[in-house]
Amino acid sequence: MTAPRIDAAEVERISREDVPSVGPEGVRVLALGEGSCSVWLPYDPRSIRPGGTISGPTMMGLADFALYVAVMTAIGPVKLAVTTDLTCHFLRRPEPRPLVAHAKLLKLGRRLAIGEVAVHAEGETEPVAHIVATYSIPPEAGAAS
Amino acid sequence: MTAPRIDAAEVERISREDVPSVGPEGVRVLALGEGSCSVWLPYDPRSIRPGGTISGPTMMGLADFALYVAVMTAIGPVKLAVTTDLTCHFLRRPEPRPLVAHAKLLKLGRRLAIGEVAVHAEGETEPVAHIVATYSIPPEAGAAS
Amino acid sequence: MTAPRIDAAEVERISREDVPSVGPEGVRVLALGEGSCSVWLPYDPRSIRPGGTISGPTMMGLADFALYVAVMTAIGPVKLAVTTDLTCHFLRRPEPRPLVAHAKLLKLGRRLAIGEVAVHAEGETEPVAHIVATYSIPPEAGAAS
Amino acid sequence: MTAPRIDAAEVERISREDVPSVGPEGVRVLALGEGSCSVWLPYDPRSIRPGGTISGPTMMGLADFALYVAVMTAIGPVKLAVTTDLTCHFLRRPEPRPLVAHAKLLKLGRRLAIGEVAVHAEGETEPVAHIVATYSIPPEAGAAS
Repeated sequence: MTAPRIDAAEVERISREDVPSVGPEGVRVLALGEGSCSVWLPYDPRSIRPGGTISGPTMMGLADFALYVAVMTAIGPVKLAVTTDLTCHFLRRPEPRPLVAHAKLLKLGRRLAIGEVAVHAEGETEPVAHIVATYSIPPEAGAAS
Repeated sequence: MTAPRIDAAEVERISREDVPSVGPEGVRVLALGEGSCSVWLPYDPRSIRPGGTISGPTMMGLADFALYVAVMTAIGPVKLAVTTDLTCHFLRRPEPRPLVAHAKLLKLGRRLAIGEVAVHAEGETEPVAHIVATYSIPPEAGAAS
Repeated sequence: MTAPRIDAAEVERISREDVPSVGPEGVRVLALGEGSCSVWLPYDPRSIRPGGTISGPTMMGLADFALYVAVMTAIGPVKLAVTTDLTCHFLRRPEPRPLVAHAKLLKLGRRLAIGEVAVHAEGETEPVAHIVATYSIPPEAGAAS
Repeated sequence: MTAPRIDAAEVERISREDVPSVGPEGVRVLALGEGSCSVWLPYDPRSIRPGGTISGPTMMGLADFALYVAVMTAIGPVKLAVTTDLTCHFLRRPEPRPLVAHAKLLKLGRRLAIGEVAVHAEGETEPVAHIVATYSIPPEAGAAS
C-alpha cells in the first residue's frame, strides 16, 4: 500500500479546469486512498430535472469523474484515460442538495481499470445511484504503473 | 401503427424548459416515429473534455433524453417516467461538433420500457456511443397506454 | 431488521430443482441475511472455457441466482420474480475451482429490486467478477412485502 | 469489405469442443458476415427456468458466443479474446424452443471490440433479449489485424 499518486489540490484543479461537464465549480475532495476517493459536488440548480430531483447525467458525470480520480490515485495523473463503458442504476430520487460520490477500483490492469461508485445525496445513508465503469489506460501510463 | 403521441414542438419545449441537463438550448427534432426518434443537439463548448472531444455525460444525457422522447412517442407525454438503468459504451471520440441521437424502443411494457440509442457526431456514419436503458413508467400512464 | 424470509434448505432445494442453469448440483448456502446472501457453487468441469478458466455464463448464472436469493431473503419465496437487466464486469480469470458469490440488495422497491454481486474463486480475496442486476417483482409479492 | 476470416464449420467445431457453456450440441451457423453473424441454438430442456421459459444465463451464454464469432469473422480465430463486460436486457420470456442470435460489431479497435446481439426465440420477430458486450483482444491478434 502506497500513498495516493495525486493530491486533493490537483484533483480539484482538474475538475474545475479540464472537466466542465462535472459542474461549473468542480468538486471538493473529501478523501483519497490508493484506488479510491470520495468527492463532493455542490448543488447546482441547473442540474434539476422534472419532479425536482437531480438529473441522471449529473450523477453519471460525477461518478465518471470520481472513478477517474480513483484511477489517478493508483497510477498518477493520466490525461488520456477514457471511459469505455459505464452502467448506472438509479436507486432513489435525490433531493436537491449536494452530492457525495465514493469510488473504488475493483481491478487495475495494465490496459483497463474497472471500478464502482456509490452516489449519495449529502447527509443520506442510502445511495441514490450505483455506477460501475471501465477506464482504458493509455499504453505509456500502463507501462509506467 | 399509429401516429406519434407527441409532436416536435412539444419535445423541443420539454428539452429547453424541463431538462436543463440536456444542454442550454435543448434539442431539435429531426424525426419522430411511434417508439423512435432522431434528435439533434447543438455544439456547446462547455461539453468538451480533455483531448478536445465531447464529454461522456453530454452523450449520455442526450441519449437518456432521446429515449425519453421515444417513450413519449408511444404513450404520450409522461412527466414522471424515470430512468432506472443506463449502460453506455463509448465507441469513438467525437469531434467538437453537433450530435445526433437515434433512439428506438426494444420493448414497451406496462411498467418498463427498454430501448437503445446510437449517438453520432453530425455528418459521421460510425456512431460515437451506444446506449441501452430502461424507463420505469408510472402506473397511471401504464394504465392509459 | 428482521430474519431472512427464506431458509438455507429451501434455497438449496430451489437451486437444485427449479434453476438447472445454476449447475447440476445446485448451490450450498454459506450465509443468509435480510437482503443479502453468500452461496457456494461446486466446481463442474463442463463450465470450463478455452484457457482453462471458468466460463462467463457460469459466473453470470451464479450471480443471477445469488441475487434472486437476496430478493427472497427480503420478501420470501417469489417464483415469478424475473431479471430485467444484468451487467457483468469480468475482473480476473478464475482458476478451475468452486465459486463463492456474495450478493446484497442496493434497493428494494415495490416493483424493482436492484443489487450487486461479487463472485470469487474459493480461497481468493480478489473478486473474479462483479455483477449488478435488477429483478422485477410481481405485483402480488410487492403488495405483500 | 472482405470475406469472413472464419468459416461455419470452424465456428461450429469451436462451439462444440471449446465452449461447453453454450450448450451440449453447440450452435449451427445461419450466416457469417465481416463483423457479424447469426447462429442457432437447439432447444435443451436443461435450460428451462421456473415459469417454463429459457434461463437468462442460456441467452447470455449464446449472445456472448455469438459476439465472439463476430469478432473472429473480423480478425480470424483468436483463442484468447475474453469478454470484459456484458450487459443484458431481458425483453420477453422466450418459449421453450430453439434460439437465434444476431450479432454485429459496433466498433473494432486494436485492443477492444464492442458489439450488440439480439436474441430471438425461433420464428418470433420480437427479440427476447438484447446484449451489448466488450471483448478484449490479445496484443498479438490486434497487431495482426
